[in-house]
Amino acid sequence: MTTRGIHHLGVAVSDLDEAIGTYARLLGGTVEHRAALPDQGVYAASLLVAGSRIELLAPDGEDTPVGRFLARRGPGMHHVAYAVDDVAAALSELAGAGAELIDEQPRVGLFGLQVAFVHPDAVHGVLTEVVSPA
Amino acid sequence: MTTRGIHHLGVAVSDLDEAIGTYARLLGGTVEHRAALPDQGVYAASLLVAGSRIELLAPDGEDTPVGRFLARRGPGMHHVAYAVDDVAAALSELAGAGAELIDEQPRVGLFGLQVAFVHPDAVHGVLTEVVSPA
Repeated sequence: MTTRGIHHLGVAVSDLDEAIGTYARLLGGTVEHRAALPDQGVYAASLLVAGSRIELLAPDGEDTPVGRFLARRGPGMHHVAYAVDDVAAALSELAGAGAELIDEQPRVGLFGLQVAFVHPDAVHGVLTEVVSPA
Repeated sequence: MTTRGIHHLGVAVSDLDEAIGTYARLLGGTVEHRAALPDQGVYAASLLVAGSRIELLAPDGEDTPVGRFLARRGPGMHHVAYAVDDVAAALSELAGAGAELIDEQPRVGLFGLQVAFVHPDAVHGVLTEVVSPA
Protein backbone atom coordinates (compact mmCIF):
# COMPACT_ATOMS: atom_id res chain seq x y z
CA MET A 1 0.00 0.00 0.00
CA THR A 2 1.27 3.47 -0.81
CA THR A 3 0.85 5.96 2.00
CA ARG A 4 1.77 9.60 2.42
CA GLY A 5 3.21 8.86 5.87
CA ILE A 6 1.78 9.36 9.32
CA HIS A 7 -1.35 11.50 9.35
CA HIS A 8 -1.75 11.54 13.12
CA LEU A 9 -0.98 9.73 16.33
CA GLY A 10 -4.08 8.96 18.39
CA VAL A 11 -3.72 9.27 22.15
CA ALA A 12 -6.29 8.26 24.79
CA VAL A 13 -6.56 10.65 27.73
CA SER A 14 -8.84 11.00 30.73
CA ASP A 15 -9.43 14.74 30.54
CA LEU A 16 -9.33 16.54 27.21
CA ASP A 17 -8.80 20.08 28.52
CA GLU A 18 -5.99 19.00 30.79
CA ALA A 19 -4.27 17.12 27.97
CA ILE A 20 -4.62 20.03 25.55
CA GLY A 21 -2.99 22.20 28.21
CA THR A 22 -0.12 19.76 28.66
CA TYR A 23 0.60 19.52 24.95
CA ALA A 24 0.50 23.30 24.65
CA ARG A 25 2.77 23.88 27.64
CA LEU A 26 5.34 21.15 26.99
CA LEU A 27 5.34 20.78 23.21
CA GLY A 28 3.83 23.97 21.80
CA GLY A 29 0.78 22.08 20.53
CA THR A 30 -2.09 24.12 19.10
CA VAL A 31 -5.70 23.03 18.60
CA GLU A 32 -6.61 22.47 14.96
CA HIS A 33 -10.11 21.02 15.50
CA ARG A 34 -12.12 20.10 18.52
CA ALA A 35 -15.47 18.37 18.86
CA ALA A 36 -17.78 16.38 21.10
CA LEU A 37 -18.79 13.27 19.16
CA PRO A 38 -21.47 11.53 21.21
CA ASP A 39 -22.11 8.86 18.55
CA GLN A 40 -18.48 7.75 18.96
CA GLY A 41 -18.41 8.31 22.70
CA VAL A 42 -15.52 10.76 22.63
CA TYR A 43 -14.45 14.29 23.14
CA ALA A 44 -11.75 14.74 20.51
CA ALA A 45 -9.16 17.36 19.68
CA SER A 46 -6.73 17.45 16.82
CA LEU A 47 -3.52 19.25 17.76
CA LEU A 48 -0.65 20.39 15.61
CA VAL A 49 2.84 20.03 17.09
CA ALA A 50 4.97 21.76 14.49
CA GLY A 51 4.06 19.84 11.32
CA SER A 52 2.80 16.75 13.16
CA ARG A 53 -0.69 15.95 14.31
CA ILE A 54 -1.77 14.46 17.64
CA GLU A 55 -5.39 13.36 18.04
CA LEU A 56 -6.43 13.43 21.68
CA LEU A 57 -9.40 11.23 22.59
CA ALA A 58 -11.22 11.42 25.91
CA PRO A 59 -14.21 9.17 26.63
CA ASP A 60 -17.63 10.66 27.35
CA GLY A 61 -18.47 7.59 29.47
CA GLU A 62 -16.97 4.37 30.80
CA ASP A 63 -18.84 2.09 28.41
CA THR A 64 -17.30 3.53 25.24
CA PRO A 65 -14.37 2.26 23.18
CA VAL A 66 -11.98 4.83 24.63
CA GLY A 67 -13.44 4.41 28.12
CA ARG A 68 -12.80 0.67 27.97
CA PHE A 69 -9.30 1.28 26.58
CA LEU A 70 -8.50 3.56 29.52
CA ALA A 71 -9.88 1.06 32.03
CA ARG A 72 -7.77 -1.72 30.50
CA ARG A 73 -4.49 0.04 29.71
CA GLY A 74 -4.60 3.53 31.18
CA PRO A 75 -3.93 6.68 29.20
CA GLY A 76 -1.42 6.51 26.38
CA MET A 77 -0.95 5.92 22.69
CA HIS A 78 -4.06 4.45 21.10
CA HIS A 79 -3.51 4.26 17.32
CA VAL A 80 -1.43 5.53 14.44
CA ALA A 81 -3.05 6.78 11.25
CA TYR A 82 -1.43 6.83 7.83
CA ALA A 83 -2.61 9.21 5.13
CA VAL A 84 -3.66 7.56 1.88
CA ASP A 85 -5.19 8.97 -1.27
CA ASP A 86 -8.07 6.48 -1.36
CA VAL A 87 -9.18 4.55 1.72
CA ALA A 88 -11.17 1.96 -0.26
CA ALA A 89 -8.19 1.19 -2.49
CA ALA A 90 -5.92 0.99 0.56
CA LEU A 91 -8.29 -1.51 2.23
CA SER A 92 -8.32 -3.62 -0.88
CA GLU A 93 -4.51 -3.67 -0.96
CA LEU A 94 -4.27 -4.43 2.75
CA ALA A 95 -6.76 -7.29 2.50
CA GLY A 96 -4.87 -8.60 -0.54
CA ALA A 97 -1.69 -8.59 1.54
CA GLY A 98 -3.43 -10.71 4.18
CA ALA A 99 -4.08 -8.03 6.78
CA GLU A 100 -7.05 -8.52 9.09
CA LEU A 101 -9.32 -5.46 8.84
CA ILE A 102 -11.63 -3.98 11.45
CA ASP A 103 -13.46 -1.90 8.85
CA GLU A 104 -14.14 -3.63 5.55
CA GLN A 105 -15.37 -0.37 4.04
CA PRO A 106 -14.35 3.27 4.56
CA ARG A 107 -16.44 5.15 7.07
CA VAL A 108 -16.64 8.73 8.24
CA GLY A 109 -14.33 9.28 11.17
CA LEU A 110 -13.50 12.24 13.34
CA PHE A 111 -13.56 15.67 11.77
CA GLY A 112 -15.19 14.36 8.58
CA LEU A 113 -12.22 12.26 7.46
CA GLN A 114 -12.67 9.03 5.50
CA VAL A 115 -11.15 6.34 7.70
CA ALA A 116 -10.79 2.62 8.25
CA PHE A 117 -9.01 0.61 10.92
CA VAL A 118 -6.72 -2.37 10.50
CA HIS A 119 -6.68 -4.93 13.32
CA PRO A 120 -3.70 -4.51 15.66
CA ASP A 121 -2.88 -8.21 15.29
CA ALA A 122 -2.02 -7.49 11.65
CA VAL A 123 0.56 -4.84 12.62
CA HIS A 124 2.36 -6.31 15.65
CA GLY A 125 0.00 -4.88 18.23
CA VAL A 126 -0.38 -1.40 16.74
CA LEU A 127 -3.95 -0.32 16.02
CA THR A 128 -3.48 1.17 12.57
CA GLU A 129 -5.80 3.52 10.71
CA VAL A 130 -5.81 4.66 7.11
CA VAL A 131 -7.28 8.07 6.52
CA SER A 132 -7.92 10.49 3.71
CA PRO A 133 -9.36 13.97 3.72
CA ALA A 134 -13.05 13.81 2.77
CA MET B 1 9.42 23.89 23.99
CA THR B 2 9.77 24.35 20.26
CA THR B 3 9.90 21.12 18.31
CA ARG B 4 10.13 20.29 14.64
CA GLY B 5 7.35 17.74 15.02
CA ILE B 6 7.43 13.99 15.33
CA HIS B 7 10.83 12.48 14.54
CA HIS B 8 9.76 8.88 14.92
CA LEU B 9 7.27 6.54 16.51
CA GLY B 10 8.91 3.79 18.55
CA VAL B 11 7.26 0.36 18.39
CA ALA B 12 8.16 -2.70 20.49
CA VAL B 13 8.05 -5.99 18.59
CA SER B 14 8.99 -9.58 19.34
CA ASP B 15 10.79 -10.36 16.11
CA LEU B 16 12.58 -7.64 14.17
CA ASP B 17 12.78 -9.39 10.80
CA GLU B 18 9.15 -10.33 10.88
CA ALA B 19 8.11 -6.79 11.77
CA ILE B 20 10.30 -5.27 9.05
CA GLY B 21 8.58 -7.63 6.62
CA THR B 22 5.13 -6.60 7.80
CA TYR B 23 5.84 -2.89 7.49
CA ALA B 24 7.29 -3.43 4.01
CA ARG B 25 4.38 -5.56 2.83
CA LEU B 26 1.50 -3.54 4.31
CA LEU B 27 2.81 0.01 4.40
CA GLY B 28 5.69 0.17 1.94
CA GLY B 29 8.19 0.72 4.75
CA THR B 30 11.89 0.67 3.85
CA VAL B 31 14.84 0.18 6.21
CA GLU B 32 16.84 3.35 6.82
CA HIS B 33 19.19 2.01 9.54
CA ARG B 34 19.47 -1.26 11.35
CA ALA B 35 21.68 -2.32 14.25
CA ALA B 36 22.16 -4.74 17.12
CA LEU B 37 22.78 -2.65 20.23
CA PRO B 38 23.74 -5.05 23.02
CA ASP B 39 24.41 -2.27 25.54
CA GLN B 40 20.75 -1.22 25.20
CA GLY B 41 19.45 -4.76 24.90
CA VAL B 42 17.78 -4.26 21.55
CA TYR B 43 17.83 -5.10 17.93
CA ALA B 44 16.63 -1.88 16.28
CA ALA B 45 15.56 -0.81 12.84
CA SER B 46 14.59 2.62 11.63
CA LEU B 47 12.05 2.44 8.80
CA LEU B 48 10.76 5.12 6.51
CA VAL B 49 7.06 5.00 5.61
CA ALA B 50 6.76 7.74 3.04
CA GLY B 51 8.13 10.75 4.93
CA SER B 52 7.52 9.27 8.38
CA ARG B 53 9.84 7.22 10.53
CA ILE B 54 9.01 4.10 12.55
CA GLU B 55 11.62 2.77 14.97
CA LEU B 56 11.16 -0.94 15.56
CA LEU B 57 12.66 -2.31 18.78
CA ALA B 58 13.03 -6.01 19.52
CA PRO B 59 14.62 -7.19 22.80
CA ASP B 60 17.77 -9.29 22.78
CA GLY B 61 16.69 -10.87 26.07
CA GLU B 62 13.81 -10.95 28.55
CA ASP B 63 15.60 -8.89 31.23
CA THR B 64 15.95 -5.77 29.09
CA PRO B 65 13.78 -2.64 29.00
CA VAL B 66 12.01 -3.71 25.81
CA GLY B 67 11.81 -7.33 26.99
CA ARG B 68 10.08 -6.22 30.18
CA PHE B 69 7.77 -3.92 28.19
CA LEU B 70 6.73 -6.84 25.98
CA ALA B 71 6.14 -9.09 29.00
CA ARG B 72 3.98 -6.42 30.65
CA ARG B 73 2.04 -4.96 27.71
CA GLY B 74 2.70 -7.09 24.64
CA PRO B 75 3.92 -5.67 21.34
CA GLY B 76 2.76 -2.20 20.34
CA MET B 77 3.58 1.47 20.46
CA HIS B 78 6.39 2.21 22.89
CA HIS B 79 7.27 5.90 22.60
CA VAL B 80 7.01 9.00 20.43
CA ALA B 81 10.02 11.15 19.68
CA TYR B 82 9.93 14.82 18.77
CA ALA B 83 12.77 16.45 16.86
CA VAL B 84 14.37 19.43 18.54
CA ASP B 85 17.35 21.56 17.61
CA ASP B 86 19.06 21.20 20.99
CA VAL B 87 18.22 18.37 23.42
CA ALA B 88 19.84 20.09 26.42
CA ALA B 89 17.86 23.28 25.83
CA ALA B 90 14.68 21.24 25.37
CA LEU B 91 15.27 19.44 28.69
CA SER B 92 15.78 22.75 30.42
CA GLU B 93 12.50 24.08 29.02
CA LEU B 94 10.64 20.88 29.87
CA ALA B 95 11.94 20.89 33.45
CA GLY B 96 11.03 24.56 33.72
CA ALA B 97 7.50 23.69 32.64
CA GLY B 98 7.32 21.14 35.44
CA ALA B 99 7.76 17.96 33.40
CA GLU B 100 9.28 14.96 35.15
CA LEU B 101 12.33 13.82 33.19
CA ILE B 102 13.83 10.35 32.90
CA ASP B 103 17.09 11.73 31.49
CA GLU B 104 18.36 14.91 33.10
CA GLN B 105 21.07 15.22 30.47
CA PRO B 106 21.19 14.33 26.78
CA ARG B 107 22.65 10.95 26.00
CA VAL B 108 23.55 9.08 22.86
CA GLY B 109 20.62 7.02 21.67
CA LEU B 110 20.05 4.67 18.76
CA PHE B 111 21.84 5.41 15.53
CA GLY B 112 24.02 8.09 17.13
CA LEU B 113 21.19 10.52 17.86
CA GLN B 114 21.27 12.84 20.88
CA VAL B 115 18.23 11.86 22.93
CA ALA B 116 16.49 12.23 26.26
CA PHE B 117 13.29 10.75 27.62
CA VAL B 118 10.48 12.50 29.46
CA HIS B 119 8.52 10.44 32.00
CA PRO B 120 5.20 9.18 30.63
CA ASP B 121 3.41 10.55 33.71
CA ALA B 122 4.29 14.03 32.46
CA VAL B 123 2.58 13.45 29.11
CA HIS B 124 -0.61 11.55 29.97
CA GLY B 125 0.90 8.09 29.74
CA VAL B 126 2.95 8.63 26.58
CA LEU B 127 6.66 7.89 26.90
CA THR B 128 8.06 10.94 25.10
CA GLU B 129 11.54 11.41 23.70
CA VAL B 130 13.29 14.49 22.40
CA VAL B 131 15.89 13.87 19.77
CA SER B 132 18.32 15.76 17.60
CA PRO B 133 20.71 14.58 14.93
CA ALA B 134 24.20 14.24 16.40
